[in-house]
Amino acid sequence: MLASIIDMINRHMFFLITSHVRLDGDALGSELALYHMLLDAGKKVVIYNQDETPANYCFLPGTDAIVHKLPVLEKYDMVFVLDCSELDRIGDESSHIGSMERIVNIDHHISNDKFGTIVYTDDQASSTAELIYRLMLKMNNLITKDMATNLYAAILTDTGGFCYGNTKKDTLIAAGNLVGRGADPQWISENIYESNSPARIRLLTKVLETLAFDWDRKVGYMVVLQSDIERAGAREEHTEGFVNIPRSIEGVAVSILFTELSEHQYKLSLRSKGKVNVELVASAFGGGGHINAAACYINGHFKTALHQVLNTIKDLSIVS
Amino acid sequence: MLASIIDMINRHMFFLITSHVRLDGDALGSELALYHMLLDAGKKVVIYNQDETPANYCFLPGTDAIVHKLPVLEKYDMVFVLDCSELDRIGDESSHIGSMERIVNIDHHISNDKFGTIVYTDDQASSTAELIYRLMLKMNNLITKDMATNLYAAILTDTGGFCYGNTKKDTLIAAGNLVGRGADPQWISENIYESNSPARIRLLTKVLETLAFDWDRKVGYMVVLQSDIERAGAREEHTEGFVNIPRSIEGVAVSILFTELSEHQYKLSLRSKGKVNVELVASAFGGGGHINAAACYINGHFKTALHQVLNTIKDLSIVS
Repeated sequence: MLASIIDMINRHMFFLITSHVRLDGDALGSELALYHMLLDAGKKVVIYNQDETPANYCFLPGTDAIVHKLPVLEKYDMVFVLDCSELDRIGDESSHIGSMERIVNIDHHISNDKFGTIVYTDDQASSTAELIYRLMLKMNNLITKDMATNLYAAILTDTGGFCYGNTKKDTLIAAGNLVGRGADPQWISENIYESNSPARIRLLTKVLETLAFDWDRKVGYMVVLQSDIERAGAREEHTEGFVNIPRSIEGVAVSILFTELSEHQYKLSLRSKGKVNVELVASAFGGGGHINAAACYINGHFKTALHQVLNTIKDLSIVS
Repeated sequence: MLASIIDMINRHMFFLITSHVRLDGDALGSELALYHMLLDAGKKVVIYNQDETPANYCFLPGTDAIVHKLPVLEKYDMVFVLDCSELDRIGDESSHIGSMERIVNIDHHISNDKFGTIVYTDDQASSTAELIYRLMLKMNNLITKDMATNLYAAILTDTGGFCYGNTKKDTLIAAGNLVGRGADPQWISENIYESNSPARIRLLTKVLETLAFDWDRKVGYMVVLQSDIERAGAREEHTEGFVNIPRSIEGVAVSILFTELSEHQYKLSLRSKGKVNVELVASAFGGGGHINAAACYINGHFKTALHQVLNTIKDLSIVS
């Protein structure tokens, strides 16, 4: 599969790279590493993302080049859709991009629906970045400091700082080799994890007050209301990582962050310590993700939503 | 040097392993990995530590065997002093142990004073565990899951979760190889970092409300009152790590956690991102530490204490 991708790269000139809405470190790092690889190979490349780059990722080399409006006049020979389990996750441009001629789908989500002309997926990989790393090794092994920095940031964040169950032998060895190519672990983690804004901390202060437990304290959850976000002068992206707080409490097997998007509409982020497969929980509500990290949306009153998701967790745990 | 250590191990039977007071992950993980290696080689081994094993490290394989009172009747052929820059760091038994016949000093601190019969130090290594790993590779390469788990835990904690500047290419590759030998990154990090108690989170909720800034937001601080600790049903040790929160805010160069010990008596924990040497700040009040992490005590009204420490930080920063 890698050989077909490399062959296709060699035979074309104009490339589009895109990923999913609600960008994370793996989406961005994978896009930017591939961008630098193609640029260095003399190609023309556009990165399109519907959403803005979150502030704590703006240090990644190449983020200046990302566009948020798809240049319509361009005709692309080939489009890379990275870290997307389905085309829809690109956002508003998904059907436009889906109609393009050569689509390369590179992803590590188990739920990937195998869209595209070439599909390179591996649900055993820690991250999409690990697949891009393999592509680079096979292509020409010319991994520059910029590529290494982006790939390292992607692997770091998608493994929760090398703490999640997807941290394998090969993941850490890849990370080590990327440090050997110039990635600076301290600088990268400081930029990503130590750029808390005062607004985020104000929001956290408020959200922590909502911490509650259920099912003999095996489920811990918190709630973010739009009014809290406004009062803290924060944005929704500031809630990133909050879901790890209930998860960090002893005895908690599943943590949930309910984020109110509008009245009676919630986004649920779910995290598991491994005993409960939260991907199954999320998919019961039309969402998706991994065993340890998943997300979905539920409409309705908060209490009803809570009740539904708790029942689903309990049912799935009894079955599994 | 490793060859001499291996030769000495092969020629003897009774071993003592020890490390420093105020045990950390590297001290414990290095001791326990070496303990398993010697046991598997058919040796008799005692691990002596003055201090108790902190609760979040008790899951490490072998901690049950650690003694906190040195068995006096035993005569040891050889003693391993691990992760100690000087003998005194062992604690009350340091002169007794220092009088033993064959002392092997294995350490990665730049300040190591080279005590002992055999000295194996490398200040470029991330941790003492990385040196024990090298010893194992050279000895017989028989790294069991128990040894791998202890070494991984040690490397993980001494690199701050692979975030500090001592995280090198070889560090991550060693960590990867240890995963290949059975270390489970998720299980290990959960045990060490995710044993938050609900009381700690209740205390954090209260303490976050005290977050304030000074000196153009370059200093961030929080205050823990005894009444907050009581109301949360927490203990003083639950404040560990709180000082990293103001530090994590963008623009903050120095963070301070004021912990009220009794009326008009405060313990100050200081953290710096490197621009301000907080060891100098702490030592101005009779405390000490490192450039990035230090502590001291101040008596008096909170406002006076705050004023004094802020002035000291500003003065030192102008000078440096």
